[in-house]
Amino acid sequence: MTAPVDHTHDSALRSWVPGADAPGGEFPIQNLPFGVFRRRGTGGAPRVGVAIGDRVCDVAAAAERGLIAGDARAAAEACASDSLNALMGMGPEAARALRHALVELLREGGSGERHADRLLAPMADVELFVPSRVGGYTDFYASIYHATNVGSMFRPDNPLLPNYKYVPIGYHGRASSIVASGTEVRRPWGQTRNSPDAPPQFGPSRRLDYELEVGLYVGAGNALGEPVPVSSAESHLFGLGLVNDWSARDVQTWEYQPLGPFLAKNFATTVSPWVVTMDALAPFRAPAFARPTGDPAPLAYLAQPAEAAGVDLTLEVWLSTAAMRANGTAPMLVSRGSFTHMYWSVAQLVAHHTSNGCNLQPGDLLASGTVSGPDKESRGCLLERTWKGTEPLTLPGGETRAFLEDGDEVVLRGYCERAGRARIGFGECRGRIAPAAATFPG
Amino acid sequence: MTAPVDHTHDSALRSWVPGADAPGGEFPIQNLPFGVFRRRGTGGAPRVGVAIGDRVCDVAAAAERGLIAGDARAAAEACASDSLNALMGMGPEAARALRHALVELLREGGSGERHADRLLAPMADVELFVPSRVGGYTDFYASIYHATNVGSMFRPDNPLLPNYKYVPIGYHGRASSIVASGTEVRRPWGQTRNSPDAPPQFGPSRRLDYELEVGLYVGAGNALGEPVPVSSAESHLFGLGLVNDWSARDVQTWEYQPLGPFLAKNFATTVSPWVVTMDALAPFRAPAFARPTGDPAPLAYLAQPAEAAGVDLTLEVWLSTAAMRANGTAPMLVSRGSFTHMYWSVAQLVAHHTSNGCNLQPGDLLASGTVSGPDKESRGCLLERTWKGTEPLTLPGGETRAFLEDGDEVVLRGYCERAGRARIGFGECRGRIAPAAATFPG
Repeated sequence: MTAPVDHTHDSALRSWVPGADAPGGEFPIQNLPFGVFRRRGTGGAPRVGVAIGDRVCDVAAAAERGLIAGDARAAAEACASDSLNALMGMGPEAARALRHALVELLREGGSGERHADRLLAPMADVELFVPSRVGGYTDFYASIYHATNVGSMFRPDNPLLPNYKYVPIGYHGRASSIVASGTEVRRPWGQTRNSPDAPPQFGPSRRLDYELEVGLYVGAGNALGEPVPVSSAESHLFGLGLVNDWSARDVQTWEYQPLGPFLAKNFATTVSPWVVTMDALAPFRAPAFARPTGDPAPLAYLAQPAEAAGVDLTLEVWLSTAAMRANGTAPMLVSRGSFTHMYWSVAQLVAHHTSNGCNLQPGDLLASGTVSGPDKESRGCLLERTWKGTEPLTLPGGETRAFLEDGDEVVLRGYCERAGRARIGFGECRGRIAPAAATFPG
Repeated sequence: MTAPVDHTHDSALRSWVPGADAPGGEFPIQNLPFGVFRRRGTGGAPRVGVAIGDRVCDVAAAAERGLIAGDARAAAEACASDSLNALMGMGPEAARALRHALVELLREGGSGERHADRLLAPMADVELFVPSRVGGYTDFYASIYHATNVGSMFRPDNPLLPNYKYVPIGYHGRASSIVASGTEVRRPWGQTRNSPDAPPQFGPSRRLDYELEVGLYVGAGNALGEPVPVSSAESHLFGLGLVNDWSARDVQTWEYQPLGPFLAKNFATTVSPWVVTMDALAPFRAPAFARPTGDPAPLAYLAQPAEAAGVDLTLEVWLSTAAMRANGTAPMLVSRGSFTHMYWSVAQLVAHHTSNGCNLQPGDLLASGTVSGPDKESRGCLLERTWKGTEPLTLPGGETRAFLEDGDEVVLRGYCERAGRARIGFGECRGRIAPAAATFPG
């Protein structure tokens, strides 16, 4: 049960907003991703907006001016908030009604144009925040390529565990350290061990990594004790964003058994500001991952029609170093992958998560796990990309990277492109590494 | 840096509240644990109260009547809330000032007696709630007895992993499914595998278990990127409560590698209503766990003076079955353990959790992990107590239990007793198993 393709996806739709129809743009009228913004320097409360072209449209302001009526009005009013949670909690019909109303407002000849000054702010003049108050943050492990690569490094004798093809493996992450795109990430201290014969030591991580992930934002929740069937799982998703699950690999190696990653991950997770709705993604659905011959079929509670289970979303990692920026060198594309390479679909992740009755709540974040594909160039973290540091990347200017150095900046990008459809983008998820504290407080 | 012992702990202190001084009681004036309550049937907003005898004292009502002045007044006003978060966030000085003010209010001759009707509600007439809005829930693994027992069942060749004596192992749990004491817990469905040669199946868990744990409630938080040194870690703790980390062992065995427990745990976690403050626990501090000769010393960031690192808290598990209740048979004591058996102290758990800069927030819950001691009778879960079901318990009336059956009710209790000190109790943490859904929604 994916969202329908309708007139809001018509590639011929044009907007009165200047630049919204620019070729190659990320935020045409067919996209309208939601985020939380504040006009820089105003000190006012953040509000919910949608991105269009290089502007942000203040949704609640449109409601306040009487420009959004009918079913959409309550949804628009819920945008007078510093998070998307209220809107997300209203469910898919409300979100769809609002999308339709916003298209009417922003399309050529739409009623918004006369109010442009009050509705729009230049993207350059706004701060963007974490889009939802994340109550629960779950991180999955849904790329079999990633799981196999990492497994072969951490457990060479046993790379892909027997449960992988049955269980959409996931674990709980830390919501409090989710930060907005652009927030500096301080290199953490942690326990690491250089060799099995040496005692561990405590100091700044020397194997800092990013992870390219897709974030699923929960819309309507489910009550505790009431599983969400896979057939209706997508109706509990508001939309997708980008997630960088920063990881300290040396800490992870030492700490992760038997209960999983903890301090190796919970020092920071960066999310992109814009949530692309499931509705906006409707024209870009793709078949489910083609399980190789011999792989088991999903158990019944995870079985879904294959034809549109996937999302044809291209994902990129860009890296720049302090030296590159000082030299005016453009960031380097480190990898490009596809969300179609995930072994488990977004609906399967939701269905599995709730299969024991666990309750999801509006604004919760489910991350996909590192998006890696079959090729070296589609590996979504340095651990895989440099094969545990043994094959360092060579950067423009001759620097090399096994893991991230201080001053390195990672930018994740994502976009959907398909013939006959308006391209839609996810914007960016950006973070720069700040040096570790010089001394540890004691 | 533990809370000081002062006049509020004097065992000669008496309260005007009827029954507060009853021998063997849990809530004398020396305790004053905080919780969130509502008078049954009123439908009003829940408020913060303290337990005294068999009454609940409405703290904000005392402030509203002008009975709490000075430094404590703002803290008392923060109790006009449906969670403890505001009070917790005010830090230890505020909590201590409020404790002192409440002792003046409730002691023999205290100013509260003239207002008793407005301040007190019988415990029997109130509903009790989860005490804080838990943003982040972390579960540790701090009993080396538990870790060794479980490890020897899950990994017979490798019971205690090499990191255990260096790393206070922990993982993130699910906050949304934390429920109040007395809430029914529905047996979850999940994936399990009967043998390595068979494919997994999906159905109701057949190895449902409790875990006896102590919960640490965070008071003042720390900013992201700013570790809390072990020397000041306890000043970030508001108090302790009881936690039952319900576990589906058959699901856990199949799912937990490589990222740790997920659906085996996140269907429900029950917490006790009362949070016993670090101040109330001051007379019951104990030396740190005595590490066996040959064990490494904690790394510097986890090193603390040994003399009062522990808490001399006795913990019990009581079980009743539907048949026992029908026959009027009293619950059976299944185990009794001590919180002094934990390898890692509460300060070490806080210091480790924040050592990478991870931010804790007021109201967050850090659970200790199963409290098990060296003896069979002190093992805090059925998995250990019945040795994976191979040594079932015999119950009064002749029933046996390997794991929990439908209708079984588990009650956790905790108390501190010491010669010359007033005994203080934690109240109870209660949950009963409801049958699994008969069919899975599809």
